[in-house]
Amino acid sequence: MNTFGQLFRVTTFGESHGEAVGVVVDGCPAGLSLSVKDFKHDLDRRRTAQSPIVSPRKEDDEVEILSGVFNGKTLGTPICLMVRNQNARPEDYERLKNTYRPSHADFTYEQKYGIRNWQGGGRASARETVARVMAGVVAKKVLSSEFGVGSSEKGICPVAYVKQVGDIVADIDPETVTLKKVESNMVRCPDSKAAKKMIDRIRSVQKKGDTIGGVVECVVKNVPVGLGDPIFDKLKATLAHAMMSLPATMGVEFGSGFGCLSMLGSEHNDAFFVQQMKGEKVVRTKTNHSGGVQGGISNGMPIVFRTVFKPVSTIFQKQQTVTKDLKKHTLEMYGRHDPCVVPRAVVIVEAMAAIVLADHCLRQGGGE
Amino acid sequence: MNTFGQLFRVTTFGESHGEAVGVVVDGCPAGLSLSVKDFKHDLDRRRTAQSPIVSPRKEDDEVEILSGVFNGKTLGTPICLMVRNQNARPEDYERLKNTYRPSHADFTYEQKYGIRNWQGGGRASARETVARVMAGVVAKKVLSSEFGVGSSEKGICPVAYVKQVGDIVADIDPETVTLKKVESNMVRCPDSKAAKKMIDRIRSVQKKGDTIGGVVECVVKNVPVGLGDPIFDKLKATLAHAMMSLPATMGVEFGSGFGCLSMLGSEHNDAFFVQQMKGEKVVRTKTNHSGGVQGGISNGMPIVFRTVFKPVSTIFQKQQTVTKDLKKHTLEMYGRHDPCVVPRAVVIVEAMAAIVLADHCLRQGGGE
Amino acid sequence: MNTFGQLFRVTTFGESHGEAVGVVVDGCPAGLSLSVKDFKHDLDRRRTAQSPIVSPRKEDDEVEILSGVFNGKTLGTPICLMVRNQNARPEDYERLKNTYRPSHADFTYEQKYGIRNWQGGGRASARETVARVMAGVVAKKVLSSEFGVGSSEKGICPVAYVKQVGDIVADIDPETVTLKKVESNMVRCPDSKAAKKMIDRIRSVQKKGDTIGGVVECVVKNVPVGLGDPIFDKLKATLAHAMMSLPATMGVEFGSGFGCLSMLGSEHNDAFFVQQMKGEKVVRTKTNHSGGVQGGISNGMPIVFRTVFKPVSTIFQKQQTVTKDLKKHTLEMYGRHDPCVVPRAVVIVEAMAAIVLADHCLRQGGGE
Amino acid sequence: MNTFGQLFRVTTFGESHGEAVGVVVDGCPAGLSLSVKDFKHDLDRRRTAQSPIVSPRKEDDEVEILSGVFNGKTLGTPICLMVRNQNARPEDYERLKNTYRPSHADFTYEQKYGIRNWQGGGRASARETVARVMAGVVAKKVLSSEFGVGSSEKGICPVAYVKQVGDIVADIDPETVTLKKVESNMVRCPDSKAAKKMIDRIRSVQKKGDTIGGVVECVVKNVPVGLGDPIFDKLKATLAHAMMSLPATMGVEFGSGFGCLSMLGSEHNDAFFVQQMKGEKVVRTKTNHSGGVQGGISNGMPIVFRTVFKPVSTIFQKQQTVTKDLKKHTLEMYGRHDPCVVPRAVVIVEAMAAIVLADHCLRQGGGE
Repeated sequence: MNTFGQLFRVTTFGESHGEAVGVVVDGCPAGLSLSVKDFKHDLDRRRTAQSPIVSPRKEDDEVEILSGVFNGKTLGTPICLMVRNQNARPEDYERLKNTYRPSHADFTYEQKYGIRNWQGGGRASARETVARVMAGVVAKKVLSSEFGVGSSEKGICPVAYVKQVGDIVADIDPETVTLKKVESNMVRCPDSKAAKKMIDRIRSVQKKGDTIGGVVECVVKNVPVGLGDPIFDKLKATLAHAMMSLPATMGVEFGSGFGCLSMLGSEHNDAFFVQQMKGEKVVRTKTNHSGGVQGGISNGMPIVFRTVFKPVSTIFQKQQTVTKDLKKHTLEMYGRHDPCVVPRAVVIVEAMAAIVLADHCLRQGGGE
Repeated sequence: MNTFGQLFRVTTFGESHGEAVGVVVDGCPAGLSLSVKDFKHDLDRRRTAQSPIVSPRKEDDEVEILSGVFNGKTLGTPICLMVRNQNARPEDYERLKNTYRPSHADFTYEQKYGIRNWQGGGRASARETVARVMAGVVAKKVLSSEFGVGSSEKGICPVAYVKQVGDIVADIDPETVTLKKVESNMVRCPDSKAAKKMIDRIRSVQKKGDTIGGVVECVVKNVPVGLGDPIFDKLKATLAHAMMSLPATMGVEFGSGFGCLSMLGSEHNDAFFVQQMKGEKVVRTKTNHSGGVQGGISNGMPIVFRTVFKPVSTIFQKQQTVTKDLKKHTLEMYGRHDPCVVPRAVVIVEAMAAIVLADHCLRQGGGE
Repeated sequence: MNTFGQLFRVTTFGESHGEAVGVVVDGCPAGLSLSVKDFKHDLDRRRTAQSPIVSPRKEDDEVEILSGVFNGKTLGTPICLMVRNQNARPEDYERLKNTYRPSHADFTYEQKYGIRNWQGGGRASARETVARVMAGVVAKKVLSSEFGVGSSEKGICPVAYVKQVGDIVADIDPETVTLKKVESNMVRCPDSKAAKKMIDRIRSVQKKGDTIGGVVECVVKNVPVGLGDPIFDKLKATLAHAMMSLPATMGVEFGSGFGCLSMLGSEHNDAFFVQQMKGEKVVRTKTNHSGGVQGGISNGMPIVFRTVFKPVSTIFQKQQTVTKDLKKHTLEMYGRHDPCVVPRAVVIVEAMAAIVLADHCLRQGGGE
Repeated sequence: MNTFGQLFRVTTFGESHGEAVGVVVDGCPAGLSLSVKDFKHDLDRRRTAQSPIVSPRKEDDEVEILSGVFNGKTLGTPICLMVRNQNARPEDYERLKNTYRPSHADFTYEQKYGIRNWQGGGRASARETVARVMAGVVAKKVLSSEFGVGSSEKGICPVAYVKQVGDIVADIDPETVTLKKVESNMVRCPDSKAAKKMIDRIRSVQKKGDTIGGVVECVVKNVPVGLGDPIFDKLKATLAHAMMSLPATMGVEFGSGFGCLSMLGSEHNDAFFVQQMKGEKVVRTKTNHSGGVQGGISNGMPIVFRTVFKPVSTIFQKQQTVTKDLKKHTLEMYGRHDPCVVPRAVVIVEAMAAIVLADHCLRQGGGE
């Protein structure tokens, strides 16, 4: 179904080239300030039409708040947020009506439903993530309000960034990274040297009409000990669910991730020690191979995870495929395209992480 | 919460050294044959006390079917399955009562609940997976019945195996692997050459009182096109959720996974073609980098994913840690232990995959 | 939360005098025809501004389909339906801002959320039922499509009508009642003699600025045997849940209802017999005291239930109450009002019944 | 499905004459004291084999706590509670194997599942309510702990009693009724004069091998303002759902209920006033026609509702029915039976009310 979360519950709707995309956010506590302008920053980041390396869609995403807010404050009732689609040019897609684009969802949707909106990906389009980003903005408000911090760099606030493009790996310290550094270049990689290489690589791939994949790393600091449910809704399980629900994701890993294979238990175990913090003794771990989660529950260390995105399926080279009536077909596509999805994915990863964490906070009774 | 699934719904209960561990399986269709002996094979595989490289717990897991079955057939009502814990020796754990074992859930549970069963991990113990394996047996019945196949190697039936231990990577073709090959050696790796190396490595690690991690790969063949929900419950999202809900997992990847970083879009896209199959034309893809899932929905190709398990946290070397009253403590543990969890994890991965797929099948209306 | 249903899942949003009220309908099967004009009939019935005995709100409810429909067919994706509020006159309500109207939700919302939209009831307003009626239209489509009937009087289609106003009880045979008869008078009571008396009574109550309660009876014919879940989601339990979620309801009863108190078991039991129906033998019951549900599951007889609605709380007489700052206050209200809610409630009961039944049909796998 | 509740989540299992009946209670906060002897009181009340007017089943219901409790305290993990069935005499039922008992669930279960446990009602038997009573005991613990009261007559604690048997209506003040008065006679009616008449009536009905229905009223005092969700999970909606999920219920009403038909709005509205309570000003209503719930949310007044139970379907008179192979059949039953279910239903109504309220308390964050 199209709903995610237990107590902070997000229901998205909308096709890429239908009337609108939107989201109903249910469970947001009453009394938070919320207005249309709160959404601009993240929606603009998601769009980033200013950048030469990203997607062509030039719409201004104008948010309408249809419900749940009164005199600038949330009411505790469901918040419906909507953005109209302005850029619908069905004729662009008419010729794709009966063709299954390789590694897209055209074939599987057609088989599952017997019908699909063939205009630009329909429901499977990345345009659906506009809804997630809007819900993420509300989730971030919940996370700040929870702990009285409010700044996007303090409090529980996920910060995501590009860790890898192709084989170019950035060197970033999750403990000190800031949103400002992330936004300092168009590829959203806070290691400026690696960023430069990534941009060059993406441009060269783009010239060939091809695409390249990458890794988004996300760090969540200031998470209180105790978030997460012990068995099926372990924090890493709900975060993995959220990440793998994003288009183009191929995998997700926490803390040491697949890298744990090069360590023995004696190296991998995170030793506990006691730290003085603002006059209080707190338990911390010397290393953070666990990625901030032990037994499915946050342990007070930064939560760190990485999501890998494949090279985008829309390429500008000839491809062999089949049509709806099972005929061979050589597909060619034109126009501009997204040579690498990760700079944009950064914003969506952040939004989904915020949604998951807000839900776990409310489950703890933290929101009341 | 302790429930997983929408229509095939699994609720587990039980602490490692409490009275029993068990599961209520709700939503299983009526009329399937089910008896106590159906559980023996997978529970024995999970236990594998016969093997020199695995865990010491020697209990015979005797299943009781408390409800939901009448005259050997499922009733459509909830099936409660229970195994009593016979091996409870609380005195073994008494000395761990106030100590937080590194990279275990002791600390986080204590913080979250203010109380924990300190006898052998309590709810966070791998013993909870007995419940999942039992539910998995029922799920496999559903999957076979669905499509009238019934053999564990045909029909929709997940087959899992050890793909990697430390840096030893096996060479296995997911398309041809069989359960028999998997079970042909104690490490459950169907590449016998790699298996030998793995066993040697595990033994050498074990001698040092240390542990090592590994990767379980799982392939699901004969999946019909159309399983999975398009947005939040994409097939890869629910499978990732299930995998990351297992103890000791650090990451999960589908199809090409993190390996997609070395390909461009033109190489990674899976080209469609039409194949004759039993006199019918079916759409297939030449490569399977997508791992059988496109747009979150199965495309008829084998589903392939890998889950990485960290080196087990229980090691037999001295470790620095802290106690409940925040004192430094040097921890030493004795006895036998599990030097590598993946041979056992194979069975649990299979069970969870079966549970996820059974749920998606029932959502399709396939179970009625 | 603001979501109802398991597989046919309805999420409503919107405050009475906010931007809009609407609903996301998730789980509607693909391929059903659906367009804006499908909603007009039931929304007009709900509004019934034409009638002298009902509410003053004169807005034309113009539905927008924001998603889920393509070229006039449902896509299987979430359908967002919205109606903008045109009649927002906050100044009318300004003076009620700090006053708790007796038997309204003003006090409880203020206490629960610390904030409320005091313009005309906000989220607690009957305006929210516009969303339910829209969802009900989609649900009726599902119910017709299921069984290939399509006419609103045949197939699984709930028909509701006014059974009682004050102490005036109509004489209606649930087996033969039709929508046409229901709509033949403004009080929606198919017993024309009783209808006349009801209208007179309502008018006389209205003249005094007072209100009166009534009972809506609903019959659902052509329900297949086997709908409903055996324990917690018995058909009568989910229907009761739906009915008691409507504003102003005080109770609900099935079949013989509270009337069962005047019968002994020997009189109340519904004897089974075998009937020939279109050449097939079917099991029916001679009486229908069970109201079509036995053990929580439909038995093939018409489902019959009654919901009682209290006299509307908005009256035009002076009332004692308190303000937000706990001062005594004498409340007077002006304008037109709804002297009796049941003629309008008929439409909403029908919609909710359709939603519940559509959900149970899809749970049976009937929708695929 | 067999699960009820959102955060206090109850999953029951078990057939009447299977191995066991039981329940998994998930979401119970950690740290509450709980032991086997806590269940005895309510299970004995449910059984009441001592009474000459109730059912014959003589088993001692011995509870086993399979999980979730450690050293006498709840762990925050799922609590599995089980009672074995000792009284299985399948031969008693053998002759009913192919017969549909009138107004029982035999026919509908057989049709829905194609199979049923024909031994004494199977899953549809009132025996399933043992599981609900056990969960109710845990729920009552949560309700007491919430507000530090602990006595079963104070704090949030539902008290239920028999209000009516046939046409004999008791005169009881919900504000002053106590559990002690309820338990002072075998029919559980605190109006001793009415109780005597009820017992006589039940005995006379019993002599004829017949049965009679009745009404259970339930009052919940000390409910804080603000419990309940505004739209679909209104307090009266979830309570109605719970009540109508019980066997043999025909209807439910809140506050004035169907009696609201004899009042006008000016009489029915509950006027607010300010009361001094322990030095604090609180808002109360002069009358309580709303039954403690306004806009779906508790308003601080006692919650009052009534559930009507039909005359039990098992009678000892000849009845016409049909068999599985659609032959006419005259059914006769022997032995002892339950001439009136309401004295026993009192305990189950109380349990379900406690479960619903505990869930709403936890949704408020009250349980953390």
